[in-house]
Amino acid sequence: MTTRHALPAQALDQLFREARTPNDWMPEPIADDTVRSLYDLLKWGPTSANASPARFVWVRSPEGKALLASLAMEGNRPKILAAPLTVIVGHDLDFPDTMLKLFPARGEMMREWFRQPGIAEVTASRNGTLQGAYLILAARALGLDCGPMSGFDNAGVDRAFFAGTKIQSNFICSLGHGKPESIFPRNPRLSFEEAGRFA
Amino acid sequence: MTTRHALPAQALDQLFREARTPNDWMPEPIADDTVRSLYDLLKWGPTSANASPARFVWVRSPEGKALLASLAMEGNRPKILAAPLTVIVGHDLDFPDTMLKLFPARGEMMREWFRQPGIAEVTASRNGTLQGAYLILAARALGLDCGPMSGFDNAGVDRAFFAGTKIQSNFICSLGHGKPESIFPRNPRLSFEEAGRFA
Repeated sequence: MTTRHALPAQALDQLFREARTPNDWMPEPIADDTVRSLYDLLKWGPTSANASPARFVWVRSPEGKALLASLAMEGNRPKILAAPLTVIVGHDLDFPDTMLKLFPARGEMMREWFRQPGIAEVTASRNGTLQGAYLILAARALGLDCGPMSGFDNAGVDRAFFAGTKIQSNFICSLGHGKPESIFPRNPRLSFEEAGRFA
Repeated sequence: MTTRHALPAQALDQLFREARTPNDWMPEPIADDTVRSLYDLLKWGPTSANASPARFVWVRSPEGKALLASLAMEGNRPKILAAPLTVIVGHDLDFPDTMLKLFPARGEMMREWFRQPGIAEVTASRNGTLQGAYLILAARALGLDCGPMSGFDNAGVDRAFFAGTKIQSNFICSLGHGKPESIFPRNPRLSFEEAGRFA
């Protein structure tokens, strides 16, 4: 680990300052390699004891998109149908079973820890959501646009895409290249003082 | 919005592939300007209807660090005391009140939407956690190391740092420059197929 500096301004723009959420999409497909490269970045983001509870369904077939769109709020349906790919970000309540692989030094201990009542749920939800955000920023780092959405029928998506598992859907995110004219004017943010304080 | 390309490999390394969680910290303080620059990046990350429910307490005074450490699991106490700053990431259940500012075009409608029973809680938790991940990656983009931790007494931290509000603590994250020798060997990750599938 050498001394690191801030990334160049152009990278900070691409990740944060100039990245925007499009509402319509160019039709070009996303290659398998791009999806795998995206996963191979986001997987390195930190999670509690490396538990990595997020699970992903990369929906890009016409049938998959139609099914997912049918379970979304009306305003989100055309976006899902237009985007080349929409990923369902879920988290697996059975993630403790993976701890032997994911934390070799203390896998059995961590597995029993996470199996305690209530612990699996809060850990899966918190860390699966962190991984969803790593996905958004990894996609932007690769030059993709992101359209995250929470307006859909979670229970219906769980039945349609995660049947027979203990995976719960969290949010969905369209990926691709957005149509610039589909972007709304940027909304303001809270000031530093409105969002926090030193202590 | 022009065509964007993937960031250079060095940037992807710094954000994801080579970033690690240190367990001990160099003592150099973090300047106010750095904390404000960090917030001014992470604030742009996408949230549901721009609700931006995360709230931050940037703990860096000796008294603040001692108080936070006293509420942490034993293994996390020395890390909090050694790090120049540990931020408490919380989310405000009263965030619907900010919608008039944050979503001028439909502020009243979104405020009433988010005030529905159960909606404020799940929206604050999901989006506050996303913002916590934006913080982690924004810090890495600025050249800082991150030490996120969930091993602490959430209710106690809420009483100590968020009294009189409806802000709930989520996780905490030390920030600074880690001691390279304090980094554990890297644990494996799930393969693409173990973590998901195309549909």
